[in-house]
Amino acid sequence: MSHSLTHSGLYTDLYELTMAQGYFRAGKANKQASFDYFFRKLPFGGGYVINAGLSDLLAYLTEVKFTSDDLQYLKSQKFQGDFLDYLEQFRFTGNVYSMREGEVVFPNEPVLRVNAPIIEAQIIETVVLNILNFESLIATKASRIRKACGNRSFMDFGLRRAHGWGGLQASKAALIGGADSTSNLLCGKLYEVPVAGTQAHSWIESYDSELEAFHAFATLYPNHCILLVDTYDTLRSGIPNAIQVAKTMEETGHRLAGIRLDSGDFVTLSKKSREMLDKAGLGYVRIVASNKLDEYEIERLLAKNAPVDSFGVGTSLSTGNPDGALDGVYKLSSFDGQARIKLSESTEKILLPGKKQVIRSIDISGCFMEDLIVLEDEVTTQNDRALKEILLNQVTIDGSVCHSDYNLTEISEYCTERLSKLPGKLKELTVSETYPVRLSKKLETLKNSMVNTIFQNIDEKD
Amino acid sequence: MSHSLTHSGLYTDLYELTMAQGYFRAGKANKQASFDYFFRKLPFGGGYVINAGLSDLLAYLTEVKFTSDDLQYLKSQKFQGDFLDYLEQFRFTGNVYSMREGEVVFPNEPVLRVNAPIIEAQIIETVVLNILNFESLIATKASRIRKACGNRSFMDFGLRRAHGWGGLQASKAALIGGADSTSNLLCGKLYEVPVAGTQAHSWIESYDSELEAFHAFATLYPNHCILLVDTYDTLRSGIPNAIQVAKTMEETGHRLAGIRLDSGDFVTLSKKSREMLDKAGLGYVRIVASNKLDEYEIERLLAKNAPVDSFGVGTSLSTGNPDGALDGVYKLSSFDGQARIKLSESTEKILLPGKKQVIRSIDISGCFMEDLIVLEDEVTTQNDRALKEILLNQVTIDGSVCHSDYNLTEISEYCTERLSKLPGKLKELTVSETYPVRLSKKLETLKNSMVNTIFQNIDEKD
Repeated sequence: MSHSLTHSGLYTDLYELTMAQGYFRAGKANKQASFDYFFRKLPFGGGYVINAGLSDLLAYLTEVKFTSDDLQYLKSQKFQGDFLDYLEQFRFTGNVYSMREGEVVFPNEPVLRVNAPIIEAQIIETVVLNILNFESLIATKASRIRKACGNRSFMDFGLRRAHGWGGLQASKAALIGGADSTSNLLCGKLYEVPVAGTQAHSWIESYDSELEAFHAFATLYPNHCILLVDTYDTLRSGIPNAIQVAKTMEETGHRLAGIRLDSGDFVTLSKKSREMLDKAGLGYVRIVASNKLDEYEIERLLAKNAPVDSFGVGTSLSTGNPDGALDGVYKLSSFDGQARIKLSESTEKILLPGKKQVIRSIDISGCFMEDLIVLEDEVTTQNDRALKEILLNQVTIDGSVCHSDYNLTEISEYCTERLSKLPGKLKELTVSETYPVRLSKKLETLKNSMVNTIFQNIDEKD
Repeated sequence: MSHSLTHSGLYTDLYELTMAQGYFRAGKANKQASFDYFFRKLPFGGGYVINAGLSDLLAYLTEVKFTSDDLQYLKSQKFQGDFLDYLEQFRFTGNVYSMREGEVVFPNEPVLRVNAPIIEAQIIETVVLNILNFESLIATKASRIRKACGNRSFMDFGLRRAHGWGGLQASKAALIGGADSTSNLLCGKLYEVPVAGTQAHSWIESYDSELEAFHAFATLYPNHCILLVDTYDTLRSGIPNAIQVAKTMEETGHRLAGIRLDSGDFVTLSKKSREMLDKAGLGYVRIVASNKLDEYEIERLLAKNAPVDSFGVGTSLSTGNPDGALDGVYKLSSFDGQARIKLSESTEKILLPGKKQVIRSIDISGCFMEDLIVLEDEVTTQNDRALKEILLNQVTIDGSVCHSDYNLTEISEYCTERLSKLPGKLKELTVSETYPVRLSKKLETLKNSMVNTIFQNIDEKD
């Protein structure tokens, strides 16, 4: 069954179209709305999130459409004539403001804002959330693994455990957050990033002996040969055979690139393997480890001086385990020129009304100090001081992408640069401090006055 | 950037093609191989897994190809002439044997087996794992939520937190495992399953008052109106306004379908809401709950007699939280007519050699008793007794799909029927027993003899 998943207008929740038809019938479809995308809770017990997904979102927004098939289906679901005609012509014409992809971002601040006719801004809600929540989660996870790896190599091996067709975005986000390379060939092709890989147990098993399998692989790939050594017995079979093959390779002027450990206790195995390799004069052979790794396990291995040169990280990276999701939401903050608000059972969950901007203060050493959420019209006065950065920048005008189209390598480098400006305490794997995000007085006043008005109205009715 | 994600040959790990080229150059590309897909660990602390993903996998296998763009890219990655010519012609020609989609399956038994030229079986490895691991995880999660919901309605609301383009498969798998409906319109269209939804806070906020917003929605959708009541204050504003609207609806012969709680303490709120609705003569108005629900929270709510009629489950369902992944693997068990094996540091992780079949015993009451893994050639003798089922059935012949193409509703019904045959203790949310999966004597003997031979070879070298 063929379908154009990556730009289908139907890749959304039913209620978006229910409401869209409602705005349409109520005659308010074209009134301007402003929606904020933000998250409330930091994942993984860490101190920040890496913003990712913007380029995929913009690609969706410029291509999204409803096919005649889609409209036929919607008709069967009781959507009606003139609204279907509208959908047939639908394209996104809004102005999107966003923090840069790769930016270091924090809870409760708008990371992206959509200004558009409410009907359009509503229809795209589900995809905004789907893409940004997911890619930001994985980029954040990758940045934590990057930190744990230090200057060792870090490869994304997660495609086989990634969530179906989401695996392409998982690899992309892993690269944004700090992976050096990915096993995912489609990601390598589309985004021109380094791909990496070794060989599987099946290669070894398909030969009558491990030694024969190693020799065959080394003959075929003399310049990029990494041998998987745990098919039968790492220290008694895999490493001795790898050493024998490495010696044969030397005779033709080649060097074995590495061996890969894929099971067992990596501290012991890497130390013993290193010792055996060094004793055989193979100090240049690198040790790769893969299997159930995450940032904590890598930190533990390196703390115990495990001589691992390269980590292949799979499941925990591509699924963003253990959190599995960023809790981002997309909320109406302005409609038809008026600030809007939603309350909540808990005061922290009250929305911030109005069209907003985020201003980051930087100290003289270049470190991030705090983020201030302001109303849009406060920006000029806020911005005339030095060492302030305006974080939300316009990325579409009337639906057309207007920002520089950064490639994946540039996004990843931006992420590295921005993380270098975050205070060290907030980059620990588990943090006890939070980065300061404050509201301007004007925003605080607006919020409080709107909350009071609503409560007064409720009280009067009681 | 446009790409055909759902049938790209490049949606795989680099090492699959490295090995494929290796088999090709070594002259063994067309030797027959048999690979087993199986998992080792039950997710969520439960007693079973729901097998899902087969239909998406078969769609991929019949459509997969390498485009000229792909080949150009592979050339840039140093893949070479005649192997690229092979890939240009590549199509999958193997015989796949599989348990049915929706089947109840257990650790260490082959759930799917691929018999194919080793080069083909290797190239498809990553996608086999990607699809089956993910969809089975979500179908299993859904079946647990289904159990917790009892006869209450259960809706999939997970798209906004699903992993990017994997969200279509997440919804599909949720339906297989037991969701009654999904918010995901693309899933509804492609698989002809019920879609469901209400309205968001933005609808309410876009009106000057909650009451006005409710009235407008009820006027537009008098037959399917569910009102979200927590925008300002559930009990002091949302419910009183909903009651007022319901009364107005009655005047035109309509009935308010329901109210949706989306924050706060659902035990208290649902009881008080029910009381208020009943007191107003609105006993027919259903109560929907959504927000951070999972099987445990639903079980807790119902244990406390929360009068919730319908649950909308999002994040935990579509991400398969907390596990996030099924640990399925795909391992070579036979090559060129010979059984193959891989050892491991831990004896439980030793692979089962040879081409295998799984036979399920059923007791006279129709309950599953045990699964027996046998060698393929044992099947005739095993099968002439009553109350035995052969679980692996051929689903492709020379790459063409040859099994009945069950639709999603049929797969879901099959899942329900099969779960009804699983002993109750194994369906608890947390189990203390495991379902018996045994090896035939012949398989056990083959395995032991192969392990011994390998260890002897290693010992002799020492």
